[in-house]
Amino acid sequence: MGVVTDPARGPKQDRSRATRQRLLEAAVSCLADRGWAGSTVAVVAERAGVSRGAAQHHFPTREDLFTAAVEYVAEERSHALRTLPVRTRPETVAALVDLYTGPLFRAALHLWVAASDEPQLRDRVTELEARVGRETHRIAVDLLAADESRPGVRETVQGLLDMARGLGLANLLTDDTARRERVVVEWGRIVEEALKR
Amino acid sequence: MGVVTDPARGPKQDRSRATRQRLLEAAVSCLADRGWAGSTVAVVAERAGVSRGAAQHHFPTREDLFTAAVEYVAEERSHALRTLPVRTRPETVAALVDLYTGPLFRAALHLWVAASDEPQLRDRVTELEARVGRETHRIAVDLLAADESRPGVRETVQGLLDMARGLGLANLLTDDTARRERVVVEWGRIVEEALKR
Repeated sequence: MGVVTDPARGPKQDRSRATRQRLLEAAVSCLADRGWAGSTVAVVAERAGVSRGAAQHHFPTREDLFTAAVEYVAEERSHALRTLPVRTRPETVAALVDLYTGPLFRAALHLWVAASDEPQLRDRVTELEARVGRETHRIAVDLLAADESRPGVRETVQGLLDMARGLGLANLLTDDTARRERVVVEWGRIVEEALKR
Repeated sequence: MGVVTDPARGPKQDRSRATRQRLLEAAVSCLADRGWAGSTVAVVAERAGVSRGAAQHHFPTREDLFTAAVEYVAEERSHALRTLPVRTRPETVAALVDLYTGPLFRAALHLWVAASDEPQLRDRVTELEARVGRETHRIAVDLLAADESRPGVRETVQGLLDMARGLGLANLLTDDTARRERVVVEWGRIVEEALKR
């Protein structure tokens, strides 16, 4: 009895879960590195060290795999953000902007742009984007201690997240870190002022 | 003598110029509608009503055509922005955001995302993006009457343009106009305050 398992879930289910997770992580890194055109179930299965049959068992279509992947990593990211220690507003602005400059944003961007041209992706990605966007907005409101019952506060937070998305885009082709850090310092102050009024 | 021409440029040069312009405009609308994968010189030539040979005479490679197209439309846009009548800062914020929500932004976005995966495009698009970005920044500083010698002003304008870019991205899959207009009203106020300090 060397293996301890959840009595409701045998080692087989645990393995299946681990395989699924490996596939999702490989799918995001593949999308970020190679774009939609270079991302197929076969390429991801190989990257994850999983057989193509096993990959197709978990995700019957390419669209299933890549929308699930972006959703999975967005959830991980939301969870990480929610469990950050309480911090100042300028620090929160910096943490929110960080969400949009890593491999997840690159992967999501490739998925959005592909979805704008491919009808079979469009509805799913639109729905996913709306859901992830609402969740990120809720987290931002909490972390910034923003009172949305006051006029303009909701739009202040929305514009901040739009700015974070634009900073992510500016980081796509070149390392924009130095410029971004200066913008984030100034906008940390601006958001602090705007929310105090 | 029914045709009046610039003495330095005969009717042949004028026709060549008009053909070039038709190709550039067709290239931008093709990139915006069909993405990089669906955009070839042949498809654009057909859309422009120009022979493939003539198209290749003007633009030997696909990369030549599409980078020239995005640059051409960006220049037209900068010119239009520069010749706007003087307006208030909140109106200027709205006009700047409008730059990022039309077909040019969609075309540029497809080109950026393709460039992030394709080495033969990457350097050219990076250089183009830097040039267009600097020009847009200069125009924004002028229109907003922003004094960049004061600390934080440069970053305030940069962050505003990042926000505009993020708002363009939010408009990619769905019509985000109603939400965007509310964000723009509020951020018009916030930028006005920030530049007054």
